[in-house]
Amino acid sequence: MAVWQQQIDSRITDMITRESGYPADFADALLYATVPGGKRLRPILCLAWHELFAGVDEYALDYACGIELIHSYSLVHDDMPCMDNDEYRRGKFTVHKKYGECMGLLVGDALMDLAYKYLCKPSPRCKKPPLAVTEYSNLLGGKGLICGQYYDLFGNIKDVDTLIEKVHMQKTAALISLACASGATLGVSITTEAEDSLIYSTGEDCSPIIRRDYKYLDAPCYARDFGKAFGVAFQLYDDITEYLDGENIGKTSVLNYLNLEDAKRMLNKYLNDAIKELNGYGDTSFLREFVEKFIIA
Amino acid sequence: MAVWQQQIDSRITDMITRESGYPADFADALLYATVPGGKRLRPILCLAWHELFAGVDEYALDYACGIELIHSYSLVHDDMPCMDNDEYRRGKFTVHKKYGECMGLLVGDALMDLAYKYLCKPSPRCKKPPLAVTEYSNLLGGKGLICGQYYDLFGNIKDVDTLIEKVHMQKTAALISLACASGATLGVSITTEAEDSLIYSTGEDCSPIIRRDYKYLDAPCYARDFGKAFGVAFQLYDDITEYLDGENIGKTSVLNYLNLEDAKRMLNKYLNDAIKELNGYGDTSFLREFVEKFIIA
Repeated sequence: MAVWQQQIDSRITDMITRESGYPADFADALLYATVPGGKRLRPILCLAWHELFAGVDEYALDYACGIELIHSYSLVHDDMPCMDNDEYRRGKFTVHKKYGECMGLLVGDALMDLAYKYLCKPSPRCKKPPLAVTEYSNLLGGKGLICGQYYDLFGNIKDVDTLIEKVHMQKTAALISLACASGATLGVSITTEAEDSLIYSTGEDCSPIIRRDYKYLDAPCYARDFGKAFGVAFQLYDDITEYLDGENIGKTSVLNYLNLEDAKRMLNKYLNDAIKELNGYGDTSFLREFVEKFIIA
Repeated sequence: MAVWQQQIDSRITDMITRESGYPADFADALLYATVPGGKRLRPILCLAWHELFAGVDEYALDYACGIELIHSYSLVHDDMPCMDNDEYRRGKFTVHKKYGECMGLLVGDALMDLAYKYLCKPSPRCKKPPLAVTEYSNLLGGKGLICGQYYDLFGNIKDVDTLIEKVHMQKTAALISLACASGATLGVSITTEAEDSLIYSTGEDCSPIIRRDYKYLDAPCYARDFGKAFGVAFQLYDDITEYLDGENIGKTSVLNYLNLEDAKRMLNKYLNDAIKELNGYGDTSFLREFVEKFIIA
């Protein structure tokens, strides 16, 4: 995991300083926003699912970094004064606090643009990206990240089910699920010749895949469902630890809707749901242990 | 032209209300930002170049709307208080003035995300998008739009050549050039079977195309160069009319570097450069007349 984290840092640095074309001053701000990052949870889940089926290669690493760039853009914009107005992230000033609001806005835009480059880039081996661009746009937009942020800010959420469905699922779990499903798709595409069948495979309706009698072909569906369950759990974990640490809880924290015990029960249920998807493919001990770290007894 | 404008309005409305997945309140803000639009210059140039080679179909229209969505996102973000702080656009409140800054930020993000969906979407006929995604990311980011905006705001431009190269070329001409080149590529792909040769054809080095002895195959290069020249001219035209209308000129207006007569001369030179690229392909009278409207005597 530490090796992957290092590789991710190093690759994102290269993407920004050597491949993006931006002038040095602007690239500095892009780097500030991205390296060193946090836990790199999303790209690491992507690579872990990939590795169940095939060793991680340069292309998988680029792809995983594309996922992380999406996460980075959303953090930079979410921190802005007009959104969450956060002055610190990971122990240092947020981008707009350090470079000014104008740069915060531009840096976020640039990171989203850059992310698309690596998410959609074909590799010599796999001619198409693991998801259709329509699916990216949905999961990063109207059926995921941006929509979840909209509900987070303006949703007027009344009950816990709506909170999970509209905010936690879209704002957090959609991107994590995308990371897992596409990591699996990329990994499987190395071990099978069924590349075409796998494209579009991680959408809402995965029945066309499961009906095929082909080893591993349903893996992206398990990965997707794992990602959805773990993604919701991860957000619940965040809500609960914030509460336990005595911080102010946000208006879309689960603790506004459930007491601590029920929230913990819900967290552990989602973690178990995630673990249930880890059946049948190779050595899943890394993913299992990864998930179990989030259990709160 | 009016027909195309109407089709663009109608198609963007559909993309937002029916295809984006966003809840109605958020879709309203997206629509407010995009329909009715301005002159629709970029998508119309895209369709006009397409039509030199093949009639405009649904796919070309979707693609042209993708281009317009990029333009729309950049306007929404540029208008924000931390950027140009504009309260009005096209005679009505800017998005952030009407819906709040937070929505301005989210709406811009959502429009960029949506644009990628239609720019990269494959059609049944043309399996790949007209440009490689790497090229999109560059032209919309580090070698184009976002980079140009960065230079516009922080470039500390000292002379007119740098202004043209760093700001006008990147902030304005890159997207217009992309619109023309990809319109031509899409149009040509209908009349030839040479789809693969055309992909990647509009990048910096177009020599691989010109060397081929294939009818129309160099069209995207002419379109690209037309777009670059017209794009710079369009920005100069904007600078000059702003000055003639007695408005405050921005710090990256060409009138800070040239007197009126020299600025007009430069405008008309770039317009002529654009017209020179209109040689040899079908009936270019629409494009020629389009360009000539920007001449200031």
